[in-house]
Amino acid sequence: MSEVRFRRISAADFFYRNKDIAGFDNPAKATFTITRELIENALDACDLHGILPELEGKIIEETRGLQIEVKDQGLGIPNEHIARAFGQVLYGSHFDEEKQTRGVFGLGGKMAVMYGQITSNTPCYVESSTSSKGPTHWVELRIDIEKNRPIILSEGTKKNNGWRGTLIRFSFEGNYSYARPKILEYLRQTAVICPYAKMRFIEPNGEEHVWKRVSTKLPPIPKPMRPHPEGVDLERVRRMRESGEYGTARELLTKGFQRIGKKTATNILYLTKRFGDEILPETKVQELTDRQIHQILSATKQYGKFRAPDASCLSPVDEELLERGIRENFSPEFVTTHMGKPASYEGHPFMVTCGIAFGGDIPFSLDGKVHLFRFSNKIPLVYDARGGLCADVAENEINWSVYGVKREDPIAVYISLATTKTPWKSTGKQAFGDKPEIRREILNALRNCGRDLRQYLRRKQKLLEEERRTAILERWLSMIIRDAAKLIDEQNPPPVSLLVKAPKESETQTPEEE
Amino acid sequence: MSEVRFRRISAADFFYRNKDIAGFDNPAKATFTITRELIENALDACDLHGILPELEGKIIEETRGLQIEVKDQGLGIPNEHIARAFGQVLYGSHFDEEKQTRGVFGLGGKMAVMYGQITSNTPCYVESSTSSKGPTHWVELRIDIEKNRPIILSEGTKKNNGWRGTLIRFSFEGNYSYARPKILEYLRQTAVICPYAKMRFIEPNGEEHVWKRVSTKLPPIPKPMRPHPEGVDLERVRRMRESGEYGTARELLTKGFQRIGKKTATNILYLTKRFGDEILPETKVQELTDRQIHQILSATKQYGKFRAPDASCLSPVDEELLERGIRENFSPEFVTTHMGKPASYEGHPFMVTCGIAFGGDIPFSLDGKVHLFRFSNKIPLVYDARGGLCADVAENEINWSVYGVKREDPIAVYISLATTKTPWKSTGKQAFGDKPEIRREILNALRNCGRDLRQYLRRKQKLLEEERRTAILERWLSMIIRDAAKLIDEQNPPPVSLLVKAPKESETQTPEEE
Repeated sequence: MSEVRFRRISAADFFYRNKDIAGFDNPAKATFTITRELIENALDACDLHGILPELEGKIIEETRGLQIEVKDQGLGIPNEHIARAFGQVLYGSHFDEEKQTRGVFGLGGKMAVMYGQITSNTPCYVESSTSSKGPTHWVELRIDIEKNRPIILSEGTKKNNGWRGTLIRFSFEGNYSYARPKILEYLRQTAVICPYAKMRFIEPNGEEHVWKRVSTKLPPIPKPMRPHPEGVDLERVRRMRESGEYGTARELLTKGFQRIGKKTATNILYLTKRFGDEILPETKVQELTDRQIHQILSATKQYGKFRAPDASCLSPVDEELLERGIRENFSPEFVTTHMGKPASYEGHPFMVTCGIAFGGDIPFSLDGKVHLFRFSNKIPLVYDARGGLCADVAENEINWSVYGVKREDPIAVYISLATTKTPWKSTGKQAFGDKPEIRREILNALRNCGRDLRQYLRRKQKLLEEERRTAILERWLSMIIRDAAKLIDEQNPPPVSLLVKAPKESETQTPEEE
Repeated sequence: MSEVRFRRISAADFFYRNKDIAGFDNPAKATFTITRELIENALDACDLHGILPELEGKIIEETRGLQIEVKDQGLGIPNEHIARAFGQVLYGSHFDEEKQTRGVFGLGGKMAVMYGQITSNTPCYVESSTSSKGPTHWVELRIDIEKNRPIILSEGTKKNNGWRGTLIRFSFEGNYSYARPKILEYLRQTAVICPYAKMRFIEPNGEEHVWKRVSTKLPPIPKPMRPHPEGVDLERVRRMRESGEYGTARELLTKGFQRIGKKTATNILYLTKRFGDEILPETKVQELTDRQIHQILSATKQYGKFRAPDASCLSPVDEELLERGIRENFSPEFVTTHMGKPASYEGHPFMVTCGIAFGGDIPFSLDGKVHLFRFSNKIPLVYDARGGLCADVAENEINWSVYGVKREDPIAVYISLATTKTPWKSTGKQAFGDKPEIRREILNALRNCGRDLRQYLRRKQKLLEEERRTAILERWLSMIIRDAAKLIDEQNPPPVSLLVKAPKESETQTPEEE
C-alpha cells in the first residue's frame, strides 16, 4: 500500500498547473489569450472610471519568442499595489462590488504574467502613474508561484510627461502567425462595442492598425450596488453580519439589500416563524446565529416577488453607440439597433442591446445563417459562435423571412449583454446559457430591429420599383414627345428639358413590355 | 472618478464565487456533481492503493433538501489530516505525484462540502479509520470560506468494528428527480469501467441499486514517476533546484528526469552552449541561475527525441476487465476489446483501451450513429458525448460498413483513456481534445475491435445461411426418403432416425425455391 503525503499548494500554483484550461494550452492560443487579457484590463482601467479609453498594444518578435506591451491612459495603479496587482493571484479591486466589469478576478492578467515567466524566464515590467503630475513608478517583477506572491527584482521612478495610466510589458513563447486572425478579429469587434475607444495595435511585422474614436459618449459608469434579495446566499449574509455594519435584523434587511423597505423587512421577519422561532425586527445582528440567518433567507425566499434589481450597476452600450460601432467597422447599407429595458434573472440585473446590419460590406450568407456577433460586458466572444443562447434565438427562434430577409441576404446580427453575472453555458466562457428572461429580452430587441429592417427593405423595394417604372415611363414619354414634336414642327424640336434621357435615334424602337 | 479598493480573497472564496462553473449552478446539477465527486474520491481511496473498492452511497430526503452519505473501504485518512482534507481548498495528497488519479486537486469534494454548507447551513460529518484495529475518528466541520480553513465544530472517536475507510455525510439543497437519470447512468458506466468494484446506492425513495464485483483483478497500482524531459517547464525545473535533492547539473538531468542517462545528460549540457555559456556537467545545481536553467531546457528541447515516457505511472483498465464490465452491464450478444501499447503526447504517457459490443441488450441505432461511451482515467464522461475526439473517430473516421455493420445495427463503442494529463477539449472537462497521438491509438484499437466484429458477423452470417440450407435440405431429404420408402415398402416405412424433422402430411407440398 502506498504512502500518502498531504500538503497545500498556493492559488498561483493551482492556476499554473491548470494553465491549459485558462487558454494557455499552446503558444498560438496563449498569444491570443495574453493579448485579450491585457486589452481587457486596459479597457477596464478606463471606461469603468469614466475615462475615454486610449490604448496602444504592440507585439514584437525577439530572438526567441514574442514580447507584448500594452499601454493605457486609464486610472493608473497606486504605487503600493502595483506588484501585487500583477504578481499575486486572487488579489484585485473588483471583488466586493456588485457592478458590471470585464474581469472580476483579475486572474487573466496574472496567468499571462505567469505564462510569460515560465516560457521566457524574463521578468515582467510594469509602469504606472495615477496622476499626470509627478513621476511614474515602475517595477520589474516575477511571481513566486509556490508562495503566490510577487518578487520585486527592481523598481524606481521615472520623469513623467503628463501621462496617467498603466503600461505592462513582458516576453513569452508565442506563435503570432497562428494567433493573428483571432487577435485582429477580437480587436475589430472590440472597436464595434467600444466605439468610444481609441486603439492602436502594431503587429510584429510592423503593420499598424488604428481604430479611431468615433464617439466621445461613454456608457454610464457602473455604480456598486447592494445585493438584491434574490441573489444572495447564506455565506453572503453571514459576511454582512460579520461586517458589523448593521445594528438590528430589520436594518440588516433594509440597509444590506436593495428593494427591501421597512415594511417588507417587517413582513419578512414575521415570516421567519414558519422556519423556527420568530426573529424580531429589533434582534441585534451580531447575535443572530447561522441558523437564524438561514431562517431569514428562507423567509425572504418565501416572501417572493421583489422589484427587479437596480440597473445602475450596469454599464450597457446604448443604441447610438452600438450603431456607431457597427457603421464604422462594417460600413453596412443599413443598420438599426435596439436596447431593452433593465431586467433581471435570479436576482442579477441585465440589459440587452441588439443590432442588425444589412448590405454594404456585410458578406452574403453562404449557409443561410446570419453572421452573428456576441458581446458579454463589452467583451467580444470570438469562439463558439454557433453554440448557446444567441445562436439559438437568431437562427432558430427568429423567422427571418417575416422581415423580408432571404436566405442568402447579407445580414449581420449583434447581441450585447450587460450584467453583473454572465450566465455562461460552460466553463469555456464563450457562449451564454439559456435563461428564459434573457432569451425573452434578446428576442424582443431583435424583433424590434427586424421590424426596422423590414420597413427599410420594403421602402427600398418600393424605391427600386418606382425607379424602374420611372425609367420605362421616361423612355415612352420622350418618344411620344419627340414624335409629337415632329408632327408639329420638323424644324423646331421641343426644348431639351422635356426630353428627359432622350434615347438616341438608333434606340427609338418601341421598347418591349417588361 | 471612483475610488478603487484592492484586497485579496482566499482560494476557497474564489471557488465559492465560481461554484456555478464547477457544476453547482442549480440544485439538480449540484445533486449530480456532489454524487459524482464523492464517488470518485471514494474510488480513488481504494484502487489507487491496491484495495478492491467497496462503496455505499445513499441519498435521503429531509424536511428541506437532501442528505448524502458515501462510505468506502479505502485507505482512510490519518486523523490529523481529516479536517483539512475536507475543509481546505488546495490541500490534498495528489499534487506532486506524476501518476494517474481521478481527481488531482481534490477540489470537487470541497466544493461539494461548501455547497452543502451554503445551502443547508449544516456541518459536514466525516469519519475515517486508517486501520481496522483501533477506534475511528470523526469530525464535524464547516469551512471558513473567507479564510480557507476548516472549523472543527466537534470531534471524537468511536469504537470500530473492523472497518477501514472513510465516510462523509452532509445536507444540501438539491433536486433528486431531475438529477436521477444522470446519476444512475453515471453509476452504471462506473460499474462498466470498474467491474472490480462493489457498489451499492440507495435512492431517496428507498430503491436500492447494487453493482456486484465481477472481477477481483485490479488495474495496476500507478507508480509515481520522475517527469519526462518533454513534459516539464521552467517552473518545474526551478523547483527541482530548490528541492536540494540534486548535486550537479548532470545529476539534475539523470536523477531528476526519466529517460535521461549519463551520456544523454552530457550531450544535453554540451548543447547548452548554443544558448549562452556552456554549462559544465559538474556545475552545482544550487548555483544554477534561472537563466542557466532556461538554457538547459532549451538544450533539452533541441536535443529532441527521448524514449516515450514510462507508463508504470498509469493504471489502465485492460481488455479482460473492460470486457467483463461491458458483458455484465449491457449483456451484449458479442463483445471484443483491445488495449493499445503505452504511448505519449507532449511528454505525457497514455494508454487507450477500446471495446465494441453488438446485439443483446444494446439498442438499435435510431440515428445511424454508434452508442458511444467514454472514460477518462476510469471516470465516465456522461455529458457532451457527440463532441470531441472520440465522437469524431467513432463517427467520422471509422467506416463501419467495412466491418459489416449496417446503419441501424445495435452497436456500442467504449473508449477508455488512461493518462497523467487528460487533454480536455474545453474547461467543461467532458470531451477529449484532438491530440494526433491519441487519435491514432483510438483509431488503431477500434479497428482491431472492428476486425473481430467483422469476423464474428461473418461467422454468424455463415451459420445462419448454413442453418437455412440445412432446413431446406432437411425438408427435401425427408420427403425424398419418405417417397423412396413408399416405393420400396408401403407397409414398412424407413426408421424414424432417417426422418430428420419429417414434415407433417399436410405440409408435403414441394417447398418453394428460396
